[in-house]
Amino acid sequence: MKEKEFIKDIKNILNSKYIGDDCANLQKFGIVITQDSLVEDVHFCRQFAIPYQLGYKSVMVNISDICASGAKPEYLTISLSLPEDITEDFINEFYKGAKDAAQGAEIVGGDITGSEKIYISVTAIGSTAGRRISSRANAKIGQKVIVSGNHGSSGAGLTELLAGKKESKFIKSHLMPEARKEFSRKIAENISEDYAMMDTSDGLMDALSTIAKESQVCLSVDFDKIPYDRDLESFTDWQNLLFFGGEDYELVATVPYENIQGTVIGEVKQGKGVEIRYKDKTVLYMPDDVEKKLFNHFKEEK
Amino acid sequence: MKEKEFIKDIKNILNSKYIGDDCANLQKFGIVITQDSLVEDVHFCRQFAIPYQLGYKSVMVNISDICASGAKPEYLTISLSLPEDITEDFINEFYKGAKDAAQGAEIVGGDITGSEKIYISVTAIGSTAGRRISSRANAKIGQKVIVSGNHGSSGAGLTELLAGKKESKFIKSHLMPEARKEFSRKIAENISEDYAMMDTSDGLMDALSTIAKESQVCLSVDFDKIPYDRDLESFTDWQNLLFFGGEDYELVATVPYENIQGTVIGEVKQGKGVEIRYKDKTVLYMPDDVEKKLFNHFKEEK
Repeated sequence: MKEKEFIKDIKNILNSKYIGDDCANLQKFGIVITQDSLVEDVHFCRQFAIPYQLGYKSVMVNISDICASGAKPEYLTISLSLPEDITEDFINEFYKGAKDAAQGAEIVGGDITGSEKIYISVTAIGSTAGRRISSRANAKIGQKVIVSGNHGSSGAGLTELLAGKKESKFIKSHLMPEARKEFSRKIAENISEDYAMMDTSDGLMDALSTIAKESQVCLSVDFDKIPYDRDLESFTDWQNLLFFGGEDYELVATVPYENIQGTVIGEVKQGKGVEIRYKDKTVLYMPDDVEKKLFNHFKEEK
Repeated sequence: MKEKEFIKDIKNILNSKYIGDDCANLQKFGIVITQDSLVEDVHFCRQFAIPYQLGYKSVMVNISDICASGAKPEYLTISLSLPEDITEDFINEFYKGAKDAAQGAEIVGGDITGSEKIYISVTAIGSTAGRRISSRANAKIGQKVIVSGNHGSSGAGLTELLAGKKESKFIKSHLMPEARKEFSRKIAENISEDYAMMDTSDGLMDALSTIAKESQVCLSVDFDKIPYDRDLESFTDWQNLLFFGGEDYELVATVPYENIQGTVIGEVKQGKGVEIRYKDKTVLYMPDDVEKKLFNHFKEEK
């Protein structure tokens, strides 16, 4: 996919101030809006996808985007395109999963059409009342870098699934990640200055790197402070799972000292890219390194 | 597709007051929201679809839903799933079409993912400030039945396209239908009582029948008053194109006498179904007849 080039083209055509963050902040209505899709054989295989989990995940990824903006998830619409052989059981299980992932947000519409493969597109709306809304471009020198939860667990779960394992705590993290609604609320309701926040859908390093790039700063992180499940260390290349595994849907934010939630893993400095401090070494990741997902970069230089 | 059964299941699971009309009316934010998708080889064939027209149509159908609610179209998000061989030209033309169809509403977000076939899912938001919002269940005995524009032109255009014709006024109606933003505004801003409104995306008869069913009334229509392009009469079965052709995206509404726009074609009466008066005959269409798309029903009984 030439997604990045296409998005550049679209930005040029639309010339809109809204394109850039995961959510568009529509101040006129006091809402943020986001739309994300899951496509069969691209994001999931029907063979492995349990309908409940599919409903759960397609809603969860959008709720997570709303949480990353700092807004309160309120409403959802779901557009489903389904092959002929889909049963009512599928629909029932799918919507049960969707409802559970919504964490109280209400599903208010959408449509159903036919198609050869399963295609799911979800739109989520969050309210901004009483909250300060984040932007990836808001990180400021001196702010602390904080994260919610543990990192790398979802990637570890996927590794186990691919190896044929059926159940484990890591597999659960992969199949049923939870959007960090409370972490988001505490920051957005209490913070007194602009801040950056993003979820780790594409990995911890991607979130750190994107915030650094969009804010034109350096995010300096202590490896030892990144929270992860200690059993992760039993995986080969566990540090790569930690940084590049993706799909943990934890939040990364840059906040002033008095607004710390979760775990402080570093700070915002002058400069560019993401600096990882590990023992007595410091490795700098620039956006190009991250885009290429140089899984061994970290290992080689440590 | 078992779309109708699935929607029944979804209504049961969600138990939401919002499911039923094309738009959900979110009073908390003063907005309505709708989401609709177009799928390759279901709604269009790549072979015939010009990217500009695809962008135009995918946005237009959503703008039309907003207009049917009486709200003012304001914002859009577009989710695109695209095969590997899609070019930047496609993206550019697609978004030009999307922007033209938006009639001033702003495209503020969405996503792009890979897929085997083209999937397009568009979400539209309209503002309700200063407007009374319609519902299909609002038609009241004594109200007039009114319509915008001409009916059957899009179906005639499709017939011509399938017969190998390349250009005509009917083909233009089919490829580039316009959402009836002004017709909608005039009613929604000025009407002093609840009213029903719906677009004719699935045909004039479908709109009439759905309003009748949801409002538990009979819509009585004079065939002679239905506006159509007189050249439609050159098509075999032209009355079927008029009633069942679909995709004209005109609006049908039930309004009190003082709020008439467009053309009065009949009135709301006690009873059920849609009554078509033609010369000295009256033919009653019940929802089951309409669902089965009994194209010859009308002809046989006239």
